[in-house]
Amino acid sequence: MALSSNTNLRVRYAETDQMGIVYHSNYLIWFEVGRSELFRDLNLPYTEFEKQGLGLAVVEANCRYRKPTRYDDELVIVTKVESMTSRSVTFTYHVYRDETLVADGKTVHVFINQNGRPSDVRKYEIWQRLQPILEKHTASVVPLS
Amino acid sequence: MALSSNTNLRVRYAETDQMGIVYHSNYLIWFEVGRSELFRDLNLPYTEFEKQGLGLAVVEANCRYRKPTRYDDELVIVTKVESMTSRSVTFTYHVYRDETLVADGKTVHVFINQNGRPSDVRKYEIWQRLQPILEKHTASVVPLS
Amino acid sequence: MALSSNTNLRVRYAETDQMGIVYHSNYLIWFEVGRSELFRDLNLPYTEFEKQGLGLAVVEANCRYRKPTRYDDELVIVTKVESMTSRSVTFTYHVYRDETLVADGKTVHVFINQNGRPSDVRKYEIWQRLQPILEKHTASVVPLS
Amino acid sequence: MALSSNTNLRVRYAETDQMGIVYHSNYLIWFEVGRSELFRDLNLPYTEFEKQGLGLAVVEANCRYRKPTRYDDELVIVTKVESMTSRSVTFTYHVYRDETLVADGKTVHVFINQNGRPSDVRKYEIWQRLQPILEKHTASVVPLS
Repeated sequence: MALSSNTNLRVRYAETDQMGIVYHSNYLIWFEVGRSELFRDLNLPYTEFEKQGLGLAVVEANCRYRKPTRYDDELVIVTKVESMTSRSVTFTYHVYRDETLVADGKTVHVFINQNGRPSDVRKYEIWQRLQPILEKHTASVVPLS
Repeated sequence: MALSSNTNLRVRYAETDQMGIVYHSNYLIWFEVGRSELFRDLNLPYTEFEKQGLGLAVVEANCRYRKPTRYDDELVIVTKVESMTSRSVTFTYHVYRDETLVADGKTVHVFINQNGRPSDVRKYEIWQRLQPILEKHTASVVPLS
Repeated sequence: MALSSNTNLRVRYAETDQMGIVYHSNYLIWFEVGRSELFRDLNLPYTEFEKQGLGLAVVEANCRYRKPTRYDDELVIVTKVESMTSRSVTFTYHVYRDETLVADGKTVHVFINQNGRPSDVRKYEIWQRLQPILEKHTASVVPLS
Repeated sequence: MALSSNTNLRVRYAETDQMGIVYHSNYLIWFEVGRSELFRDLNLPYTEFEKQGLGLAVVEANCRYRKPTRYDDELVIVTKVESMTSRSVTFTYHVYRDETLVADGKTVHVFINQNGRPSDVRKYEIWQRLQPILEKHTASVVPLS
């Protein structure tokens, strides 16, 4: 069973470019909206992480664009935790319009402390709330080292 | 004599929308690029302000769009300090393409401290460097109260 | 009675800046989201306008920032048609967080044809659908000249 | 010998987020700025492509973030054509700050016609100007099929 969340989103005019379609960097922003929603669904809003001095820095992002999307399109972002260690998380994203996959991608993040240095999530209070969630979804999470 | 600075800028593809012209919110970002350049020209980079715990929060912004601008256009942003008090600054902006005015606008800012509360610029070290500059340009600056 | 629409919106991480609050140009994008919603509420999606070769070009925008907004804030954008002629429309926007007004603004638009020239909305088919709506809301609409 | 171009760029305040560093989707925009510059350096501005009804649609993008970048940083984007066929181009990007690699990435594009369908660049007039350039840089370009 996967840690997964669906987010609905409508394309903004500002997100289009002169090709008449969505400018490609906006998908990474949508991925982040999906991530936020996933955390919120788990009752662990990302604002909680930051309050504890814990950040999730992006170290890698990629996206495959399969169909153009357009102003006013209604999209669904399906966000999943693909794998997790005590120091990093990998998310995958699938963007659908009417059941058609229009794009998919992946981001890799490392946990960082307030000085921007890599850190271990188990040192933070939020770990007490995160651990039981992960245990319920073991199939999708790599054992913490 | 005015506190003034010219910034050259080339329109990015990402800044266009499906109308084939620059999406209007980007002009506010260009204004900020102009402001940054003005501070840098004065040898008072905005990073210095922030290092001292002093911010310049935008409280008002407006822009009139006179001619559309397009991808790859070369623009000049002329940024001026219109007025200043110890607690606020008003900037004006004129955007030109080949000597033609394509847009102009204004932003009003208040000085804030690290808690986001309004503050008096004269309480900060940077004031020692700012004051002599303002004295050289008295015509454009409202006397500090 | 006013032509009015409410839009719910959650602040994206991408919309913040290093001051820890929403970067000010994003409010203009939210205004556009509000405008889109207003048209959709009237059963006149803006995509319909463009299909008929009719555009609404922004000629003026302004915003007053009253309270900072932050990542994950839930906001409501109240969009209204302030006035309208056959050649232009003025919208106002009020942004609320928990009943508190955090920002308000105004945009002025002119109708343009596919060559980007000012045009009269009454020459387009969509006028047949727009007119009865306007007649129901006469108080808020300046008589068409 | 590679088709390559260097672009200087200064980080905008708008590009930062509340982590105090540049928001990650902006790197894709910088890559596009690099691409534009590369075309301009070759005396083949991308506006020329579009005038002939030829587009370059992004089908894949990725980026590795090695060091955070910050407001006012001066960066250099080194853009290269990694490979090319008559139907697609792959670009690589390396972003440096003071000789330090801060990020690198890749985008894959397909040539499209005005209907957004995949197309062969050799059918367009611009091919007459593109071909001699490619012949000078054979090492970096996969033979056109």
